Amino acid sequence: MIPRYSRPEMVAIWSPETKFRIWYEIEAHACDALAALGTIPKENAEAVWKARDVEFDVARIDEIEAVTKHDVIAFLTHLAEIIGNDEARFVHQGMTSSDVLDTCFNVQLVRAADILIADMDKLLEALKRRAYEHKDTVRIGRSHGIHAEPTTMGLTFARFHAEMQRNRNRLEKARFEIATGAISGAVGTFANIDPAVEAHVCEKLGLVPEPISTQVIPRDRHAAFFAALGVVASSIENVAIEIRHMQRTEVLEAEEFFSAGQKGSSAMPHKRNPVLTENLTGLARLVRMAVVPAMENVALWHERDISHSSVERNIGPDTTITLDFALARLTSVIDKLVVYPENMLANMNKFRGLVMSQRVLLALTQAGVSREDAYKLVQRNAMKVWEEGKDFKTELLADPDVTAALSPAEIEEKFDLGYHTKHVDTIFARVFGES
Amino acid sequence: MIPRYSRPEMVAIWSPETKFRIWYEIEAHACDALAALGTIPKENAEAVWKARDVEFDVARIDEIEAVTKHDVIAFLTHLAEIIGNDEARFVHQGMTSSDVLDTCFNVQLVRAADILIADMDKLLEALKRRAYEHKDTVRIGRSHGIHAEPTTMGLTFARFHAEMQRNRNRLEKARFEIATGAISGAVGTFANIDPAVEAHVCEKLGLVPEPISTQVIPRDRHAAFFAALGVVASSIENVAIEIRHMQRTEVLEAEEFFSAGQKGSSAMPHKRNPVLTENLTGLARLVRMAVVPAMENVALWHERDISHSSVERNIGPDTTITLDFALARLTSVIDKLVVYPENMLANMNKFRGLVMSQRVLLALTQAGVSREDAYKLVQRNAMKVWEEGKDFKTELLADPDVTAALSPAEIEEKFDLGYHTKHVDTIFARVFGES
Amino acid sequence: MIPRYSRPEMVAIWSPETKFRIWYEIEAHACDALAALGTIPKENAEAVWKARDVEFDVARIDEIEAVTKHDVIAFLTHLAEIIGNDEARFVHQGMTSSDVLDTCFNVQLVRAADILIADMDKLLEALKRRAYEHKDTVRIGRSHGIHAEPTTMGLTFARFHAEMQRNRNRLEKARFEIATGAISGAVGTFANIDPAVEAHVCEKLGLVPEPISTQVIPRDRHAAFFAALGVVASSIENVAIEIRHMQRTEVLEAEEFFSAGQKGSSAMPHKRNPVLTENLTGLARLVRMAVVPAMENVALWHERDISHSSVERNIGPDTTITLDFALARLTSVIDKLVVYPENMLANMNKFRGLVMSQRVLLALTQAGVSREDAYKLVQRNAMKVWEEGKDFKTELLADPDVTAALSPAEIEEKFDLGYHTKHVDTIFARVFGES
Amino acid sequence: MIPRYSRPEMVAIWSPETKFRIWYEIEAHACDALAALGTIPKENAEAVWKARDVEFDVARIDEIEAVTKHDVIAFLTHLAEIIGNDEARFVHQGMTSSDVLDTCFNVQLVRAADILIADMDKLLEALKRRAYEHKDTVRIGRSHGIHAEPTTMGLTFARFHAEMQRNRNRLEKARFEIATGAISGAVGTFANIDPAVEAHVCEKLGLVPEPISTQVIPRDRHAAFFAALGVVASSIENVAIEIRHMQRTEVLEAEEFFSAGQKGSSAMPHKRNPVLTENLTGLARLVRMAVVPAMENVALWHERDISHSSVERNIGPDTTITLDFALARLTSVIDKLVVYPENMLANMNKFRGLVMSQRVLLALTQAGVSREDAYKLVQRNAMKVWEEGKDFKTELLADPDVTAALSPAEIEEKFDLGYHTKHVDTIFARVFGES
Repeated sequence: MIPRYSRPEMVAIWSPETKFRIWYEIEAHACDALAALGTIPKENAEAVWKARDVEFDVARIDEIEAVTKHDVIAFLTHLAEIIGNDEARFVHQGMTSSDVLDTCFNVQLVRAADILIADMDKLLEALKRRAYEHKDTVRIGRSHGIHAEPTTMGLTFARFHAEMQRNRNRLEKARFEIATGAISGAVGTFANIDPAVEAHVCEKLGLVPEPISTQVIPRDRHAAFFAALGVVASSIENVAIEIRHMQRTEVLEAEEFFSAGQKGSSAMPHKRNPVLTENLTGLARLVRMAVVPAMENVALWHERDISHSSVERNIGPDTTITLDFALARLTSVIDKLVVYPENMLANMNKFRGLVMSQRVLLALTQAGVSREDAYKLVQRNAMKVWEEGKDFKTELLADPDVTAALSPAEIEEKFDLGYHTKHVDTIFARVFGES
Repeated sequence: MIPRYSRPEMVAIWSPETKFRIWYEIEAHACDALAALGTIPKENAEAVWKARDVEFDVARIDEIEAVTKHDVIAFLTHLAEIIGNDEARFVHQGMTSSDVLDTCFNVQLVRAADILIADMDKLLEALKRRAYEHKDTVRIGRSHGIHAEPTTMGLTFARFHAEMQRNRNRLEKARFEIATGAISGAVGTFANIDPAVEAHVCEKLGLVPEPISTQVIPRDRHAAFFAALGVVASSIENVAIEIRHMQRTEVLEAEEFFSAGQKGSSAMPHKRNPVLTENLTGLARLVRMAVVPAMENVALWHERDISHSSVERNIGPDTTITLDFALARLTSVIDKLVVYPENMLANMNKFRGLVMSQRVLLALTQAGVSREDAYKLVQRNAMKVWEEGKDFKTELLADPDVTAALSPAEIEEKFDLGYHTKHVDTIFARVFGES
Repeated sequence: MIPRYSRPEMVAIWSPETKFRIWYEIEAHACDALAALGTIPKENAEAVWKARDVEFDVARIDEIEAVTKHDVIAFLTHLAEIIGNDEARFVHQGMTSSDVLDTCFNVQLVRAADILIADMDKLLEALKRRAYEHKDTVRIGRSHGIHAEPTTMGLTFARFHAEMQRNRNRLEKARFEIATGAISGAVGTFANIDPAVEAHVCEKLGLVPEPISTQVIPRDRHAAFFAALGVVASSIENVAIEIRHMQRTEVLEAEEFFSAGQKGSSAMPHKRNPVLTENLTGLARLVRMAVVPAMENVALWHERDISHSSVERNIGPDTTITLDFALARLTSVIDKLVVYPENMLANMNKFRGLVMSQRVLLALTQAGVSREDAYKLVQRNAMKVWEEGKDFKTELLADPDVTAALSPAEIEEKFDLGYHTKHVDTIFARVFGES
Repeated sequence: MIPRYSRPEMVAIWSPETKFRIWYEIEAHACDALAALGTIPKENAEAVWKARDVEFDVARIDEIEAVTKHDVIAFLTHLAEIIGNDEARFVHQGMTSSDVLDTCFNVQLVRAADILIADMDKLLEALKRRAYEHKDTVRIGRSHGIHAEPTTMGLTFARFHAEMQRNRNRLEKARFEIATGAISGAVGTFANIDPAVEAHVCEKLGLVPEPISTQVIPRDRHAAFFAALGVVASSIENVAIEIRHMQRTEVLEAEEFFSAGQKGSSAMPHKRNPVLTENLTGLARLVRMAVVPAMENVALWHERDISHSSVERNIGPDTTITLDFALARLTSVIDKLVVYPENMLANMNKFRGLVMSQRVLLALTQAGVSREDAYKLVQRNAMKVWEEGKDFKTELLADPDVTAALSPAEIEEKFDLGYHTKHVDTIFARVFGES
């Protein structure tokens, strides 16, 4: 976790304090269930709740762990220090450490997913706002980085919205994947603990009981979770690349917001770097790098080995923290993005109408000119634009062979941008579900 | 694609013949829609269907492509050779190559997904059958590769079933991700083609219109698709590793089926190698390696660049073909797996009852012995088993300090395997949804 | 392997014919060594060479393999058909299949590496030629995609040369990594075969004996090999991205060569897509995707498991074939790249001298103006350029506060491009080792 | 970075204190060089060294950065606070931030590499010691997890030694890859700074001047660096898997060292988990996951974009810290590994001599028995061992058809383990370069 790429709410999920709090809740709810089953005395279950408002002493737990070399035992020992050794003696009965660790990890991932989904909602909101704002802001569409046909800036925002809407769904499914808990004992047989305990604990923590666990919750769930995050990150990169391209000196169709006071910007006004979206490109790589190890974690030996643990200690916090930060940063970038419609027009007209050559070609053919002849007509005028800096429409209007097939009005019409934007409303309705 | 790791049905999806057939259907359906809109004459649309039963000549198309350097144009030229130049002159009108290529690619992926889902159903069937067959076949559960507590072979099969059931859901969602088509023109604005054409073509091909496309269908869909396949592959590896472990010489709790005539098996009867599951381990890596490039494909420049294309030409066929083969191979392995219940018992008893030491410890404590004393009692008897090869139960029964706390019947009861299997039915009901 | 992204020489290395030829040579040389040791009769060793000029019948070997289910046995059976059963009876004595398979694989990788190194030499040659050609072709250097300070096109080529020179070294080291052979028997102990056989076979095949093998050659070597290829691919992507940027419509400082006859180029002269470098971007991803599975292959169980095999059947051919193709394609792109020096100048001057603002700022400070004042002076003139389209130098020359500190000649000098190119020769000497 | 998987010396390299110290040295040496060139006054260069023994105040620098939003400027401001604004006014002259950042990063990577190489030396020492200790400790060699032929534990250690020796070489090459510095200005042209400054700074810091840089040092170097670390990690996994297998309950040929007092070990003496090597398996995945993003970092836009930066802020520290920890942990595991030679023998004899069946088969053939007959003879005796629990040698000695071909002494000889270990010295000499 890199502090500069993190936000406190997500970081807090991964703090030792939060972890111990969740462990505590798992143990306390388990005691309740055990008491309800008559396995342990009611008083002992109630006693555990004495620590309800206690802030656990992480340093003390670490101290104990330094001796016991076991984190769950260290925590339980500290808990006993708080509620009394005698009262604590039934805590964790019949459970195995992984029951606590895995259920806690999934609680953390669920909370992380909730934040990510909320982040995504804010991003969607920003994208939608900017999409409507620039619904009709015409710019050139590009394939291969080369001018193709006109489109609008609103469509660009809209397609990012549609992509992020899909990512929202993926995040929801990812959340669903890991919203399970397991209190099933050393090899998952419930030999020493009744399934009713698992049911109660899960219900209290907002989880579903894992239908069949071993010592651990199966890791295909986590692989699917991190894979979904990798897809989201790749979409962030997709938006970032678009903005980086738009901000290039030669293109300059948009810029990341630059506060007036930001150093260096006014002596070299051309030197405003898209550092936020460049950063997002890198952050996307960081999120994505968790995907393969998460998949390598799936094939554990028999009822569990612990190879996944060190991986998850890293990618659990790092990936969710980075993605949370990235989503928030992207939202801010979109929100404040400075768009330059006039530069968009200037760029589109860089080759004085040549982007319309395809339409003219089509029109000539439809007007009965053979494909070969139409091609030659377009070509000879295009070449004058390309090589001599002429204006395409002017040349066409002055070419008798062209005007023999197309009237000036028809030629003019081929340069009408409305032709290209006529379905924008339809597409918006498809994306935003509105009329 | 490695021929030995492929099956004809999936390979056929990726053949040039299939591809051209799908291209043809896209073009023909598009003509129907254009005719319905009045954009092109009805006769021309009908004429396209003259090729309905024609097998396209791949060699001829390649020949044309060698000249035109453009695959879609080469195909259209060949199509015109079949239905007549004049009749063909409205084919592809207003469309861009990517409309055909991307929609076709998604049709292929959908078909591939259908096969994978059918594969998965067969695997699920095999896993379920073996799970019930070995529901009560007791074996030792292992954490860290070390004996822990008893479980059953049926639970092992059942947890793989649950995992594969999740993977089936993931495959369905993956199929849904890529079941879209786009006929939206050069930059996705429908400038030269009405959205109704897209709607008609998609409906005919079993796809949903992409709500907003650029020149291409957005690649976050494909990233999600291949990510799902990577998770499935990781689960295959998970099952494979279990079987490879079971077949180890020292463990030998199961073996891949060996036909009587299989070379070398009888002179060295111990030398039956789990080559199928080892192979599956490798195939899992191959499927998984597509995940990252599929994610790198998401960030295309502006309305598209073509960097994704070469990647997809590889991972499209290779990944689906490999996964199809792997699922089928795993199904066969599960189906015929030779299970050795007696070896399972022998392994469990390798340390003459020591796996029950935890239960005895617990029983002593519950019988009022202090934790420290209980520990010492268990330890001194355990050590005799470990160091002198004694039997744990026998030692306990002969230890007066133990029998002071626990009656012989109580001690016996601690070695009852039924204790560990009492919830198997519950778990089966959770997995298989039956009582 | 995708035919369109492959070249025959590299493909041939991975053909069954080549494989069987190498197997044959391994077996024949091994027989020579066994005969020299007196282990087998000299006549039998000599008899093997009867097949020296025989083209092995792949179909026949496949036929036998279909029965024996073992590729090496199938080959040996076919060999015996050629040289006679009796003469062949000592072939493969004391060897294990992996001795043949692994040694052969490394021979193939060595040959592949040789081709890649030769490819790289051609690329280096092209880069050097273009570097000298454009040593003094000034263009704007960019950081963050934003204009920074002038550099030259020659320096761009030169830095790619330096990078590829490093890659050449990496390829040589990669070749060295896998240039070993092993004929050491079932678990690498030479129990049934003398180390002298290994020494002889390796020497004949241009390999070094693997100091210690198990049944297989250790796979860390192959991991290092494919990792090196991944780095090379990443550098190819680096060059490709530069060219794709240069060819953008708004930048147009260079273009991939377009043959006069290439379809579509003249009617839409602006529409020349950098499809080759886009393709290289994708191919880089394909090469890179082999790196992780090659690393996952390292941890084989005990003296070997066969999980690596299916991975290598894929990445062995696919990765080397793709990289060979990519290097050749890149060489051709560099060779024929159309460079537009005038556009470079035009781009550099897009903001009428603003890229020199930094130098002016420095000069003012050095002339004794305080940092704050210097900043304000530069800023107020820069803003006129930025907002009103004025020329920077003209504005400076007209600003009395500026001219109070710097003479017109000094101001002029700040716009001298020679200032930026004065060390080009030094750098070239560092890169090309020439004066 | 996960504290529990880190060691202070490596962590220190990545502390802000170390970073600022290196920045300081770069700036101070640069001033010296500038003074020697006469570019800045000697006194100013000397003044910088006043801070030689100052501990920079990280909190103060952070405070300044919070305002300036620029880390290098914040540092320079703080430096000026220490040595005086006036004295500091030539610091950093003609340099660009990346000159400092990239050169510093490489210094850190070089230092990290030095630690890793020293770690590797300790691991090599441990492996060598254990190899000689167990040179003749016979154990069964296994392919596919199945018994094959005897080998020795010493050979296992020796092959890991050979592999790690190769990794040491790779680390050295990796160190060489990134042991460069660059002080070349905004786009690498040395426009504002003489190459002599770079030469001086690099020499002082133990680096070589980057022959050609842009604003940054080319990232193919770093890709190669992290790829090498990924290979090393994969080898660590390789050793870890071997030990995890050896410690399996059913195999138990070795165990990670368990201190007498370690909790739980004596009541369940069988329950000693190979947690260290399992952990190493996970750590290997963590190191490896840096490889792909490091390769994705290579293709920067033009003279640099900053996408690599966030990636490196993570993988720089995390990967080196994790690998350092892993190497040290593995060394300790190897050092203290408890080896059970008697269990090795017991395992080898699990099938009462069957592992020698291949040798007997060979001997029968060499004694003139036809291959078919020899096979039948071996098979019928092997089956009695396999199915009836007989001893292979005893059966052979009692089979008249066998004894007709082989004398009892010859049969005995086939079970001589010396046959399998006769080349161990040769192999050791190859690995350890000793006689």
